Amino acid sequence: MNIKVMNPSYSNHIFCHSLALKFEFRNNEIQFEILDQTLLPNEEVWLSVLSTDILVDSIKCLKIRGAPLIGIAASLQIASLALQNKSIIEISADLEKLYESRPTAVNLMNCLNRLKNLLKKESLSNVIQECVQIFNEDVELCEHIAKTGLSVIQSNERILTHCNTGGLATAGVGTALGIIRKSQSLYNNLHIYADETRPLLQGARLTAWELKKFDIPFELITDNMAADLMKKGLITKVIVGADRVAKNGDFANKIGTYSVAVLAHYHKIPFYVAAPMTTFDLNCETGDQIHIEQRNPSEVQGFVSSKYNFSWTPKNTPIYNPSFDVTPSHLVTGWITPQKIYTQDDFKKGLI
Amino acid sequence: MNIKVMNPSYSNHIFCHSLALKFEFRNNEIQFEILDQTLLPNEEVWLSVLSTDILVDSIKCLKIRGAPLIGIAASLQIASLALQNKSIIEISADLEKLYESRPTAVNLMNCLNRLKNLLKKESLSNVIQECVQIFNEDVELCEHIAKTGLSVIQSNERILTHCNTGGLATAGVGTALGIIRKSQSLYNNLHIYADETRPLLQGARLTAWELKKFDIPFELITDNMAADLMKKGLITKVIVGADRVAKNGDFANKIGTYSVAVLAHYHKIPFYVAAPMTTFDLNCETGDQIHIEQRNPSEVQGFVSSKYNFSWTPKNTPIYNPSFDVTPSHLVTGWITPQKIYTQDDFKKGLI
Repeated sequence: MNIKVMNPSYSNHIFCHSLALKFEFRNNEIQFEILDQTLLPNEEVWLSVLSTDILVDSIKCLKIRGAPLIGIAASLQIASLALQNKSIIEISADLEKLYESRPTAVNLMNCLNRLKNLLKKESLSNVIQECVQIFNEDVELCEHIAKTGLSVIQSNERILTHCNTGGLATAGVGTALGIIRKSQSLYNNLHIYADETRPLLQGARLTAWELKKFDIPFELITDNMAADLMKKGLITKVIVGADRVAKNGDFANKIGTYSVAVLAHYHKIPFYVAAPMTTFDLNCETGDQIHIEQRNPSEVQGFVSSKYNFSWTPKNTPIYNPSFDVTPSHLVTGWITPQKIYTQDDFKKGLI
Repeated sequence: MNIKVMNPSYSNHIFCHSLALKFEFRNNEIQFEILDQTLLPNEEVWLSVLSTDILVDSIKCLKIRGAPLIGIAASLQIASLALQNKSIIEISADLEKLYESRPTAVNLMNCLNRLKNLLKKESLSNVIQECVQIFNEDVELCEHIAKTGLSVIQSNERILTHCNTGGLATAGVGTALGIIRKSQSLYNNLHIYADETRPLLQGARLTAWELKKFDIPFELITDNMAADLMKKGLITKVIVGADRVAKNGDFANKIGTYSVAVLAHYHKIPFYVAAPMTTFDLNCETGDQIHIEQRNPSEVQGFVSSKYNFSWTPKNTPIYNPSFDVTPSHLVTGWITPQKIYTQDDFKKGLI
């Protein structure tokens, strides 16, 4: 369902399409849709974002997810409001709502800060242009991360990844999964292991869906099998994404990442984290300062999606369910960014 | 449903009850029932074992599970046949069927070998007595393991365990979980972390059920959270069970055990394995000689039980699904047996 605009504040055609997001403006109509990721992999349902409330709700329920993609979707919602000629007061109020949808996401915060500043001094048309620019920048960042990352991947590598960091999490090819996609298109002989990533199973549902879609050979494993594969010499490299990187290189990412980092360290397997510079939070000195929220117990008590809520534990089983864990800098071989691969030395010398 | 016996070969009353198994003989009637563990924790359904085929099928579908308990159930089925005055030929044929129900289970093999020898030379009445003895021995073994293990547990410990090793896996209090039960009844201030143990979720379904039943404070976690808890100092000890211990101390146990062992080693947390001597296979020199079978992909593709088969991955997602992994001797702090706690030195000196 599209939004019709009477007197648009912008005259150009806008076209921002990615694997999980469609934003288009033409013939005085806005089409803004997101792929409901809670229904993947079995159903591909697109939701119309007709209001800020719908988007906030979709972020909270993980219908749209991935640190970069959330920031981009929030920006495009601001573009939508601006195209509709909403007042600065209305747009600012909705911008504040978007901040609240995921308080820990640094990309979201960065995008919204950027637009907030612009709203104070620029025309709506310039604000809209900036929103589109945020989308395009992410596509480019992904391309550059993939290109930089390519330099650490050899032919015939067997790469383990965790959670989902691909086109479902960004506007482009992704971060960790983007590197994998690029490398596979170069060598055509990679083998990927995807952690299922309990409790929310982003690996089993989303990464498996992407790897299948792009015809990349892989096997799905439960999170507790990675160590066994490493011992058997079946994994040559680990690449993961990041939700927030601290000034010293410590980084927060989906729960289970730290476990993989320790296991890779023990088995002497290179462990890389891929992220754009917008994920680096230089106000955060170390990983200790990253606040980790506890999520709903029902996620661990069984399988939860927007359609299912299936419990396999005894009633009221007590649960520990942190959303993220923090991997210390010393376990990381390299930080793959769009510009270069940072090393532990770079962090020690304060070159970030 | 009970089996009526016309001319029983045995005159005494038999009473072998445990958490997951009931075998009783009185008034010329055999009652042999097992708790269907695939329906736990939400339903407690007891199945009548009216034939060897029913038991073989129940072992294959994991309705009855746990290395010691499988051997005991198989023995009691031989007792049932003997009580029914079946011929030696018939009993021997059924005994062979039982071997095939789980070829990798060393306890099962040991129990059946013991009875096979006896069948050749002793009266049915003596065979029956031996079957009952096998049950009683396991109850005692568990008691002794728990007592030995008590010496490594201090007040206020926070113990991580993997899979299920309690009264649902043995005739007695269990191995690793038996130590936990005994220690909690002494100190009354332990805190347990239970790995959910993907893919079959024995931790989430069975260990959580037992811990709740015995009122032991615990939290359930997904397997990938253990490292995070260790880093935060929330785990002081790890105790697991074993499916087979090799001559050098390497041991096979439920997939994920090796992962926990590496993580405990990295965080300098003592890691114990608890098992009766019947789990030690001295014909097996090292862990490399333990054959590990691949299980059905559907287990990793979603949640599988006797009632549900729920997939959350894309269709035909390729899966790696080993049933067990092998933990090398050098990662183990101590092997808790009914007699004593063996150390790495004991294995090096060949004292086992």
